[in-house]
Amino acid sequence: MKAAVLHQYNESLSGDSFVRYGDVPDPKIESPTDVIVRIGGAGVCRTDLHVVEGLWRGKVDVELPYIMGHENAGWIEAVGSAVSGMKVGDPVICHPLVTSGHCLACRRGDDMHADGSRFPGINADGGYAEYLRTNQRSLIKLPSTLAPKDVAPYTDAGLTAYRAAKKASRHLLPGEYAVVIGAGGLGHIGIQVLAALCAAEIIVVDRADAALQLAKSCGAHHLVKADEQALERVLELTEGKGAQAVIDFVGEGEAISRGLAMTRNAGTYYVVGYGGRIELPSIDMITSEKSIVGNLVGTYAELVELMALADRGRVHLATREYALKDANQALLDLHHGRIQGRAVLVP
Amino acid sequence: MKAAVLHQYNESLSGDSFVRYGDVPDPKIESPTDVIVRIGGAGVCRTDLHVVEGLWRGKVDVELPYIMGHENAGWIEAVGSAVSGMKVGDPVICHPLVTSGHCLACRRGDDMHADGSRFPGINADGGYAEYLRTNQRSLIKLPSTLAPKDVAPYTDAGLTAYRAAKKASRHLLPGEYAVVIGAGGLGHIGIQVLAALCAAEIIVVDRADAALQLAKSCGAHHLVKADEQALERVLELTEGKGAQAVIDFVGEGEAISRGLAMTRNAGTYYVVGYGGRIELPSIDMITSEKSIVGNLVGTYAELVELMALADRGRVHLATREYALKDANQALLDLHHGRIQGRAVLVP
Amino acid sequence: MKAAVLHQYNESLSGDSFVRYGDVPDPKIESPTDVIVRIGGAGVCRTDLHVVEGLWRGKVDVELPYIMGHENAGWIEAVGSAVSGMKVGDPVICHPLVTSGHCLACRRGDDMHADGSRFPGINADGGYAEYLRTNQRSLIKLPSTLAPKDVAPYTDAGLTAYRAAKKASRHLLPGEYAVVIGAGGLGHIGIQVLAALCAAEIIVVDRADAALQLAKSCGAHHLVKADEQALERVLELTEGKGAQAVIDFVGEGEAISRGLAMTRNAGTYYVVGYGGRIELPSIDMITSEKSIVGNLVGTYAELVELMALADRGRVHLATREYALKDANQALLDLHHGRIQGRAVLVP
Amino acid sequence: MKAAVLHQYNESLSGDSFVRYGDVPDPKIESPTDVIVRIGGAGVCRTDLHVVEGLWRGKVDVELPYIMGHENAGWIEAVGSAVSGMKVGDPVICHPLVTSGHCLACRRGDDMHADGSRFPGINADGGYAEYLRTNQRSLIKLPSTLAPKDVAPYTDAGLTAYRAAKKASRHLLPGEYAVVIGAGGLGHIGIQVLAALCAAEIIVVDRADAALQLAKSCGAHHLVKADEQALERVLELTEGKGAQAVIDFVGEGEAISRGLAMTRNAGTYYVVGYGGRIELPSIDMITSEKSIVGNLVGTYAELVELMALADRGRVHLATREYALKDANQALLDLHHGRIQGRAVLVP
Repeated sequence: MKAAVLHQYNESLSGDSFVRYGDVPDPKIESPTDVIVRIGGAGVCRTDLHVVEGLWRGKVDVELPYIMGHENAGWIEAVGSAVSGMKVGDPVICHPLVTSGHCLACRRGDDMHADGSRFPGINADGGYAEYLRTNQRSLIKLPSTLAPKDVAPYTDAGLTAYRAAKKASRHLLPGEYAVVIGAGGLGHIGIQVLAALCAAEIIVVDRADAALQLAKSCGAHHLVKADEQALERVLELTEGKGAQAVIDFVGEGEAISRGLAMTRNAGTYYVVGYGGRIELPSIDMITSEKSIVGNLVGTYAELVELMALADRGRVHLATREYALKDANQALLDLHHGRIQGRAVLVP
Repeated sequence: MKAAVLHQYNESLSGDSFVRYGDVPDPKIESPTDVIVRIGGAGVCRTDLHVVEGLWRGKVDVELPYIMGHENAGWIEAVGSAVSGMKVGDPVICHPLVTSGHCLACRRGDDMHADGSRFPGINADGGYAEYLRTNQRSLIKLPSTLAPKDVAPYTDAGLTAYRAAKKASRHLLPGEYAVVIGAGGLGHIGIQVLAALCAAEIIVVDRADAALQLAKSCGAHHLVKADEQALERVLELTEGKGAQAVIDFVGEGEAISRGLAMTRNAGTYYVVGYGGRIELPSIDMITSEKSIVGNLVGTYAELVELMALADRGRVHLATREYALKDANQALLDLHHGRIQGRAVLVP
Repeated sequence: MKAAVLHQYNESLSGDSFVRYGDVPDPKIESPTDVIVRIGGAGVCRTDLHVVEGLWRGKVDVELPYIMGHENAGWIEAVGSAVSGMKVGDPVICHPLVTSGHCLACRRGDDMHADGSRFPGINADGGYAEYLRTNQRSLIKLPSTLAPKDVAPYTDAGLTAYRAAKKASRHLLPGEYAVVIGAGGLGHIGIQVLAALCAAEIIVVDRADAALQLAKSCGAHHLVKADEQALERVLELTEGKGAQAVIDFVGEGEAISRGLAMTRNAGTYYVVGYGGRIELPSIDMITSEKSIVGNLVGTYAELVELMALADRGRVHLATREYALKDANQALLDLHHGRIQGRAVLVP
Repeated sequence: MKAAVLHQYNESLSGDSFVRYGDVPDPKIESPTDVIVRIGGAGVCRTDLHVVEGLWRGKVDVELPYIMGHENAGWIEAVGSAVSGMKVGDPVICHPLVTSGHCLACRRGDDMHADGSRFPGINADGGYAEYLRTNQRSLIKLPSTLAPKDVAPYTDAGLTAYRAAKKASRHLLPGEYAVVIGAGGLGHIGIQVLAALCAAEIIVVDRADAALQLAKSCGAHHLVKADEQALERVLELTEGKGAQAVIDFVGEGEAISRGLAMTRNAGTYYVVGYGGRIELPSIDMITSEKSIVGNLVGTYAELVELMALADRGRVHLATREYALKDANQALLDLHHGRIQGRAVLVP
């Protein structure tokens, strides 16, 4: 099959060719629960750029060359002998983790914390290709209203934003406030999820005017430019006390310290974006009784929930298509901030 | 002052005069935390008819004659010596319970379960009058967007509906279903609250077409006529399994057994309306693992939350004004089903 | 193999022979995820008597003759081709449900509410036999401290009691009260679980002095004879208000109405035992804001939790062994109230 | 009256006289809800040393000279005109915060996050004295089993430990692990609370052998010396993965980074002690999905819960009495690590 393969790390993201498009062997059914998916679309994610940079080298165990692409959807091409209830041709979206289902985390529904999982596109061959090997447990059948290439980015970007916003929605009451920092690929989904799951006032903070306009169309009630006055402006909007929930999709630079300062006493700062550092005296956590909560994709059941929102038109995802052979162009456009919403590779 | 006073019970609700309009002594500040409120509006509730019928006689300790009216809002007229932070003229809405705040239930925020509370209009003089004695703890200041006579019915009808719908919203996930039985005075608020607080599909069941149309405008996704086919229709809409939450604002006749049957295994049936009986074999609770949850107004903090929703236009209340001297007409119109939304008495 | 087989229903439980001991074909691996377990012990449960009586006929789909026994533990005898991480000879305890793991309930960890599950001993051949067919998902490996025949009854009796007590423990605070009605096979586990998981005062209500003594040794703080004065006595022990949680392991006769009356306002009545009827006016649920919660075995993860308690000596189970060929004697002894704790059949 | 008064900060805690013992005016009833308490005991807390050092200068608004002492219990000496249900001579323990009860936080039961509260001993005159001015809302009547001087330290040290341990106990399941860092004044209460409220295995980490022995008597299951091997040892005890909850009563030096490393993925690090800094890359919160939770005393209702545990003998507090006039000796002994448990000043 054809695939876009990563052959070497490129720490400075220099040049214009990160992956190499060409022929590789087709994936095969290797275990009774395996499924081969014919890719309909594979999302292009900032994490892919971080993979190219080698930032994940110490965190996961993978050897080059391998195929990136961890946001995948398509149609079932082949199934193993123990697969039941799914058949060739079914349209499916792939939960990013491939798990056996036997560990206690899986038995409690916490797929993301499974023992011994694979993460295609991160530590195994992914979906920048015509076919992908995964297993039955990772697959959700799509309703006819949703085309694989239109929903692929929900599997990681969407799911991560969903989970963080859902956590916040569980404690946000009417009359309370949620701050969303960053209205990009993840943030614009997070805003829509908050608007669907609770009645808090949503304040969006971003540097770019275009992002703030996107936020508004997603349901934001207040827009705040991410400059020197951002904290002051958020305090004005929140009775001088900050928001009960702050969801930080940036997670680097000043976003972190500002996000913590925008969090009301007894409130929670959800960190989703990464790159920066969390640094504060422990006394500040004591006197404020704040919480800092880390976030990592979501469960299989949460991806089902997100698909229900998408199916009912409660969340929308802006995508831009690229042919699989133009994977480098998509990565470059992302790197240079030329993509609104999310790029998707189509074989 | 003028007031509409209940002098005797009337078990069959016969005739056209339930209360007597006339002069009574003004209420006075009796304790340092007391507040006198000048009534702007007093809601007329089905519970008032039940009071006239004597249905509450065994449940509460009250002697006739007394003044009904437990849904009150207005302006502060006088304050006791220990009242702080509130002043004469402030527009306020009255939480239905008057509590000391000292018992453990109050200290945990569960006002409704306070020891030794008063419930003006039920077991003490209420708001079918020009003035009402209450205390500081029962009062919430109104924003300028909300007039007392327009919001008075939120204090009981609205708050009860809010609390039940909020409880359900805490566990309703996208892709799940909520059935609302009865789209009347409480139900139409419950539907709006569900739509604001979660993304479940809302199915409304009512006998009256007008109520179903009101339900639609309140955010219902599916309308079901409350006839012999109602259960079957709800099962069709819910994958043959019923809804994860059923909120029953009727609570009598076939509503109860139907509501329980409409509840999915592991789901919850919230009973709000009353008059009928819950009757089922215990084995049916075991094999289904369902829950039955009783509901009783709401906390002070929940009334603050509901006011936040009203202030932001997320819930609307249809009211019809009557002069205080026409209290009997309002009670009669309610008794004979001639009121859409909620009647409010204005002195 | 040898097995004790149910050939016909016996509605009055007359005579002294309910099942027939004899030779039946060995179970075989039928699907890639199947496992054959060599039975070490099979618990004898009141539900087995109810099965003999035909009480479950309308609830489940099973044809006679079949093998009862839904509380099983033993050693792995054979595994299907897709089974991994488990090997012949491993000591295991069997979660009572056999599920595919693919439905949304399973993916959320709610095994008991799985679509299309089997329940060996109820609607498929069970463990009153030398071998049992189940699948990998139902099996938990036992630590060396726990012998199969000593723990088999945990799978249903123990797990059901665990789940109900765990639910109650989630909201029981220090200074609050839990009433346990019935200190038999399930109840004596429930008491130990409550004592392990929360600091509430435990009040046990039972008709039998021996059961009350067992309750005391299990951690009960107060013992109440289940007679006419029982309600009054419980109210005296609970500030005149009843308990925040009542767990009813009887669920028939006066236990239900008494249990509801023993429940404090805003509290929860957990119904576990069955046979009787729940009957009350809906207004009683409204004014009290009580909840009634049904209970049905527990999840796989909860059986793991219960095994952790057993392994650490926090719960103990009194068992009495019978040879498999003496199954009828065990059933008779149970029927006639001659068993303290739990009977276990050993092949 | 006599009191021990702080006249000036002493940043290096040099010398042997921090407060001055002598005569000051008696406190008076100033508002209708005020209560004067005759002090039976006032706990001496590390925070008092931090106050002397001036560490709280920027955090709270207080002018010297003033009276320290924020852990108080005694008997009612006088009550304001609006106080009801309490009378002169009643033995009481004082919740550390004095609140009006009117803000939304109070109405929800979150006393600690009240608007405009006073904290006697921190930002108002405290209990290193014969009498203390507080108000009705801060007082809990003591059962006859508990003497004021024996329970005074529960109000802050005990309550803080209780709240953190209670939070953890809400999610700790049988088979899971809790690490407690520091078995001093707070830690030894935290251990007892964990043991009372959940069935997790408790691992205690401390530098001092005496503290570890105290931990053992409080219910710790595993003891770990706080040295270079501490992390490795905790990982060995927790399947190589760390604990689901880590409660850090030290909050400075290596405790913080070690505590975070001892926290299992998806687990929670509760920070209670202070003095150090939390510092980590945001990506570590993402990939692990850990939470960091700040902790600040507890609510009034939680102090009631803690008193219920004390009354039933589920928690014990080791105290050492000093006469009020020897306040400096108590502070010095604390400063130099010469106190096991908690010092209490008795007028």
